[in-house]
This record gives sequence, C-alpha cells and structure tokens, in this order.
Amino acid sequence: MNRKMVFFIIGRILLLESILLGLPMAVSIYYWDGGQIPLLFSMLLSLALGATLTRFMRPDSQVIYAREGFLITGLAWVIISVLGALPFVLSGEIPSFVDAFFETVSGFTTTGASILTDVEKMSRSMLFWRSFTHWIGGMGMLVLMVAVMPNLPGRTIHILRAEMPGPTMGKLSPKLSDTARILYLLYIALTVVELLLLLAGGMPLFDSAIHTFGTAGTGGFGIRADSVAGYSPYLQWVIAVFMMLFGLNFNLFFLLTMRRFKSVLRSEELWTYVAIVLASTALICWNIRPLFACFSDALRHAFFQVTTISSTTGFSTVNFDSWPSLSRMVLVLLMFIGACAGSTAGGLKVSRVVLLFKTFRREIRHLLHPHSVTTIRFEGRTVENTTLSSVATYFALYMGLFVLFWFIVSFQPGYDGVSNFTAVAACYNNIGPGLNLVGPAGSYAGYSPFVKLVLSLAMLFGRLEIYPMLISLMPGVWLKK
Amino acid sequence: MNRKMVFFIIGRILLLESILLGLPMAVSIYYWDGGQIPLLFSMLLSLALGATLTRFMRPDSQVIYAREGFLITGLAWVIISVLGALPFVLSGEIPSFVDAFFETVSGFTTTGASILTDVEKMSRSMLFWRSFTHWIGGMGMLVLMVAVMPNLPGRTIHILRAEMPGPTMGKLSPKLSDTARILYLLYIALTVVELLLLLAGGMPLFDSAIHTFGTAGTGGFGIRADSVAGYSPYLQWVIAVFMMLFGLNFNLFFLLTMRRFKSVLRSEELWTYVAIVLASTALICWNIRPLFACFSDALRHAFFQVTTISSTTGFSTVNFDSWPSLSRMVLVLLMFIGACAGSTAGGLKVSRVVLLFKTFRREIRHLLHPHSVTTIRFEGRTVENTTLSSVATYFALYMGLFVLFWFIVSFQPGYDGVSNFTAVAACYNNIGPGLNLVGPAGSYAGYSPFVKLVLSLAMLFGRLEIYPMLISLMPGVWLKK
Repeated sequence: MNRKMVFFIIGRILLLESILLGLPMAVSIYYWDGGQIPLLFSMLLSLALGATLTRFMRPDSQVIYAREGFLITGLAWVIISVLGALPFVLSGEIPSFVDAFFETVSGFTTTGASILTDVEKMSRSMLFWRSFTHWIGGMGMLVLMVAVMPNLPGRTIHILRAEMPGPTMGKLSPKLSDTARILYLLYIALTVVELLLLLAGGMPLFDSAIHTFGTAGTGGFGIRADSVAGYSPYLQWVIAVFMMLFGLNFNLFFLLTMRRFKSVLRSEELWTYVAIVLASTALICWNIRPLFACFSDALRHAFFQVTTISSTTGFSTVNFDSWPSLSRMVLVLLMFIGACAGSTAGGLKVSRVVLLFKTFRREIRHLLHPHSVTTIRFEGRTVENTTLSSVATYFALYMGLFVLFWFIVSFQPGYDGVSNFTAVAACYNNIGPGLNLVGPAGSYAGYSPFVKLVLSLAMLFGRLEIYPMLISLMPGVWLKK
Repeated sequence: MNRKMVFFIIGRILLLESILLGLPMAVSIYYWDGGQIPLLFSMLLSLALGATLTRFMRPDSQVIYAREGFLITGLAWVIISVLGALPFVLSGEIPSFVDAFFETVSGFTTTGASILTDVEKMSRSMLFWRSFTHWIGGMGMLVLMVAVMPNLPGRTIHILRAEMPGPTMGKLSPKLSDTARILYLLYIALTVVELLLLLAGGMPLFDSAIHTFGTAGTGGFGIRADSVAGYSPYLQWVIAVFMMLFGLNFNLFFLLTMRRFKSVLRSEELWTYVAIVLASTALICWNIRPLFACFSDALRHAFFQVTTISSTTGFSTVNFDSWPSLSRMVLVLLMFIGACAGSTAGGLKVSRVVLLFKTFRREIRHLLHPHSVTTIRFEGRTVENTTLSSVATYFALYMGLFVLFWFIVSFQPGYDGVSNFTAVAACYNNIGPGLNLVGPAGSYAGYSPFVKLVLSLAMLFGRLEIYPMLISLMPGVWLKK
C-alpha cells in the first residue's frame, strides 16, 4: 500500500477545493451576504491542509495499483465533503455538522436530498456553493484534477476508473489527461448553452446559474420551496431536455464533435435510454391526464418528472407524490435504472440493464442447449464473459447493499415503510426526493443524525459505484504492505 | 421438440392426480359433506384426460432434452392446478373459476395465499383437498410420479432438475427413481412424526392432518380465521420447529439415516440457515418484548413468525402486521432469503445467498488484484465459475421479475404500495400473507381477476424457480422441430 501517494493526491484535491471555493467567495463578496468569512476560513484551511499533505507526503515511489485508486477516490470524496460542509456550519446557516455533511455529500454526489426545511431563507453565497458542489461532483473532482494538473505522477487510470461511472471506461484519447480535459470541455460547453437558454427565457442570472449547476451535475438542489414549479413552461422544458442530455454518455457528445454521426446513431445504450424515457412519459402522461386542464400540461409534467428521475436529478414541477400509484411506481422503477454510463447521472445505468437482459437471454439459451456457445455483443463489440459476470455480480451487490441500507434506516421510528424505502432508493441512486415524508414536498430533516450519516454513506456508495467506498472501509486494505 | 413425450408424461400426471383426489373423496364420504359428486367428477375427468393422453400420445422416440423437461414441468403445474380447481368450483364453495385457480395454485406451490374471506365456512372435504395440495406440491408431483411410476421412458433427470429447487441437484442414489423414492419416504416419515406430536398435544385428527400438510409442504393454509393463534403454546412450538425442519435440505435427513453425522454438521447451508433463524428471532424478540406479558410469549411468537416466514410457510400466531416496523422489515428480508435448497420451501434459498456473498468477496479481491485466481468452495467442494455466474444471473433475473410483477400489480386501484409490494413478495416467494391489506388478518379477495392471475403466475414462477415457466411461455420453444 503506497500510503504516501494516497495522501499526496488527497493533498492536491484539497488544493483544488480551496481554489473552487473562490467562486462562491466571489458571489459572497458581490452580494456581501455574510458568507465571506466562513468561506475564506474554509478556503484557507483547505489550502493549509493541502499544502501540508503535498509537501510532507511526497511519495518515494510513484507506483500505484488498483487498490490505491479505490482508496484515493473513496477517501477524497469523504474529505472534500467534510471540508465542503464547513462554510454551512461556520455561517450558522446549517448549525449541525451532521446536517451540513449530509447536505454537502448530497451536493457532491449530485443527489439533491436536502435537510433544509426552508431553502428560501439561505444566503445567496451558501445557495451558490451548495449548487456548485453538484457541478463539481457531476464530472468528478479527481477527473478535474487529472485535467488541470496533468503532471500527476503514477498511473492515474486507476483513479479515473474508480471515479467514473459505468461498467467499462471509454478512453477518448490515448492520453488520460487529454480524455479528462475533453470531458470537462464538453461539460463546460453544455453548461454554457443551458445557461444562455435559461437567461433567454427571462430567468435571472443567479437562478440560471443555480439551475444549470443542478441540471449539469444531475443534482437537483434548487432555491425555491416548490423547486422549479414556479418557472415558465419554456424554462421547465429547457431544464427537462438538458436533464436528459446530461444523462447521456459524454462519449456521444465527443463523437458528435468529431462528426462521427453514424457511431452515435448506432449506440444501443442511447436508443434504449430514449425508448425508456419516451415510453415512461407516454404511460405517465396517459395516467395523469385527468389531473391537468390540458394535454400539454400533462405531457410537460410527465416528461419533466421522467427526465428528472431517470437522469437522477431531482428537480420537480409538481408534487408527484400525489399522483396515482401506477405513475409513482414507474418513477420508482426509473430510480433504479438511472441514465447512461459515462454521464453525470446515478443509478444502475442503462448499459448495465441492457447487458443484464442479454445475459438472461444467454442463460436461457444455455439451459436449453447446454453445449451451445453464445457470444454477447454490445455497442458493436463482443463482451467478455468476465465483464458479464461482473455486471451480474455488481447488480446483486447493488441490490444487496440497497436492502442493507433500507434495513438500517427502517430502525428510525416515526417513518413509514414507503418513506424509508424511497429515501434509501433516492439517496443510493443519487436522485434526491422520494415519496411520502421525503417526497418533493417533504425533507430529510426529521431523520436522526445516525440515519443521516447512513444515508450520506448510501449516496457515496451510489455515486462511486460501490467498490471505492467498500474497499476504503476494509481495514485489511489499509494495513497491507 | 418431442411434443408427444411432453403430453404423454402430462397424461401420467393426470392419472396420478385422479388417484390423489381419492383421499379428499374418502374424507368427503366419511363426513358426507356434499363434496362427493364434485370430487368424483374431477377424478373421472382427470382419469379420462390422463388415459386419453397416455393412450394416443405414446411417443415414437423416448429421447427428451432439457427443453422438454422445462416444458413438461411448467405445463404440468398449470394443468394440475386447472383440474385441481374444479372441486371448488363444482361444489359452489368458490364459485369463481379464477378464485378457485388462484387458491389451487397457491396450494400446489405451497404459497398459502388465500382469496377466502371466511375459511371456517368451507366444508371438511374441500379444506382437506386445499391443504393436501400443499403436501403434494411440497415435494412435487413429478418427483412423486418418478417415485411411483419408475418405468418411465426417457431421461427423467431433465424433469426432476426442472422441478426440484436449488442451484444444483443432489443425487442421493445413482438411480433417479431411487432418489425420488428416498425423498418421499423421508417426507412421509417426517409428516407422520409431526402428525403424532400434534395428536399427542390434543389437536383433533382432522386439524392435525391439515396443519401437518401445511407444515410439511411449507404451505400455510389453515382452517381457522386466526390461523393457529387459537392452539396451545405446545402445538405452536411443534409446528414452529417442524416448519424449520421442513425448510432444511432433505439430503441432510438422508445423511442422518445413513449415520453420516459429520457430513451433516459440516453443512455450511445448515449453519447459515440456523444462524439466520436464531439471529432474526433474537432481534424480533427484543423488539416486540413490550407487546407481550411475559418473555416466553414474546420468544414463542418471534420464533414462530421467523420460522413461518423463513420457511415460506405462512401460518401465524399473531397479526405481525401490527408489530414495530423493524420487526416487519426483518420479516420482509426473510421473505426473500427463504430456506435451504432441496427443501419444500420457496424464496431465493440460503445456498444461493451464501454463494452470492462468496462471489462478492471474490469480485473485490479481483478488483484489488486483477491477476489473482480465486476458487470458491462451498460444502467442501470447489464451485465452478459457470455455477457462480448462473447464481448471480438467477438473482438478477429473480429481482427483475419481482419488479415486473410488482409493476403489473401496482395498476390495481385501491391498494397501497406496501400491500402490493408484500402481496407480490409473498406470492413470488411462496409464503402467503404479506402486510397491510394482504396481512395475516387480510386476504387476496379484493384484487381484480387479472391481478389474481398475475399473482398465480408469480407463485408458479417462484415455486419452479423461474426457468420452467419462462421457457414454457416462449413460443419459439414450442415451434422448434
């Protein structure tokens, strides 16, 4: 175990966080809303810790393996959340540290679950930092570090692989730092386009920035008690369409910029995702039609809620918790599927679901013809058996951990089964709102500090796709020479 | 596809059902309760159909493959349920055919879910037939056929493998018909011991027979509105212990008769199952202690409910739906785990859960050391990779189908999410009662005929472990030459 290297890279991550805190700092100075001192203190602490680690933990050997990659990722996400929670605590806007930690983890993991009961009371700078964490966490802090600090020693592939979602990692360029840079450039470009479209619809600059961060990271923190229900249909459509776009594999956008349209159109994951979104929208639209005055309202609300849940964002235009049980059921299903691999979204990912279905088909063929050999193809390539068995194992572990988290949360008195089930599903899949007490009109404030920490852990497990967190929690890995 | 062979064996199954209907017929004649004519008619119809099929479908070739095995099993279970439902319809005691079919499928699959709102109104012979289906379905009608009609042509292994639960089939003897016969002898022996112990506790003969059938098949149909709550603590303890015993792998009882005690004590599945039952009992007992006057009551009710759910039987001594949410949660978890492979119980089976955990551990080791080779051992033997990947695939398919059934049932208006979720879980895992509207105090009567058929399908999928039903529903298999 190359411990020095682990702490050296975490030091760099802290330096990066210190710089990123500069943006809410600027917002705070502009509005002069009292967030300056807490933000400054957090910046300086982050800087001091980062400088200490990078200075005294300079590694003797630059060799890292998979286990260091998982540890760096798991640990870095916990540490940036601890430091990211400080401004909320120091400003007194979220006095309890556990609450602030929950909120920050929810931000970085792009979950959007909130313990705030009155979001409209928060200061501008804190709201900005809260939503900015979505944007940072969407593409990932470690990916950002690889993009802007390319002189990183060692085999960064282990770090990127641990942070980036999906069953396999797509390389856009032979050089990893180039891949990271291309991803961030595409991310920034899409962010700017959405921002401009929201501004064009008459949304104020501050609101536009907040909602663009929430959409880009597929996070879902808003600034109003009714999420985005109060904005015009045009603005809601823009956000809905962008939620869907940010749920796509970023490799597709890269292929688009390379003018490789055929490759994009041949993507199985793209079409499956689009089919899921359209079919769910149609079903829900038909189911909720009687609740709305005109068809276009029903369609907009159905499409918005489907994209918000399937992209695991968590904005809402209506309280979908009051919808008929069929629609609520469809939304719960979508919670687990999630969006595409290589996007900023959470959940199981469409590509895994597709691979699972192909595995089922092969298993049946194998039962009927025990001596047959069937190769499975996905996105035009043959998928190896080890990948397929990893996907099935991942799914089993994913469901197993879900049940475990659900089990622990069910100890909380005063919460009903549906609230607990959907609270865990919404945190684990990085969505945000659940149903009943944690529905779009509710909040996570009522849970005990212990349950809030468990849910924070569930968010981290979900965002990092289980293994980095699981491996970081195994003492044996730390102690190994 | 050897269609003649499929129908020939189904003909034999119908002849067997005709004979088995003789037992409730005898009960009916003894009590002279009006069930004689409906039962006689069902016997004769079954006999006529069976005789026709075995006469005109005498196969040209006796060669059968895995697909015929799955088809025979899937089809046979549906057909015996259709014919088994006739006595209820003809006697007018369950006038609706869909209701009677649901009740019969629930019987044969040893689920114990009921559409009866007042079980105490039923005649003796119908109650007897209803519970006798549990006993037949527990070990399986096809296993019985192989045991009593050993002159069966073709490779019966494909039929046994499709009907018997668990990831792999244990052969007790090189000859399959001997294996089937040993299993039935052990089954009858345990049944007789329980019957005698219940009689010794002062339970009337008829009641003892009913509850022994329900326990042996891990079914759960009773004859009183309050299930077994009205019987003495001694009787409840006897039933609870036997529910646990019938949840064990029958291979263990065989090893006991062979005096191979060491092999029994080394069984990983046995110890895992016992540990699960004891830990759940302890947790629930602690959780429900304040609800009962003395500790022994709390312990008895906790142990009874844990064994009834984990063995997927479904008797109850209290309305556990009114217990605290922690206890209800533990019970829902137990619903999915089920008992041991090779028992009469449903659910995922303990051995699969153990293998899944071992697969997780190996996956983590593989992530940390990509070039390591780890073999997994279970019950003292090395488990092949194909078995492990089949288990993970089975689990994924199992959860996927659960979600699908839950999705379809959620269309039912007027039922809440917890009722629907637990109704599907209880049917799919062959338990019987769920929570809320389908709890121990409720019934399945309120569901629409469509949902009742879907739930019947879920019971058959659960009892036959998915593939026989799935393959029977694939038109491609039927059409294949």
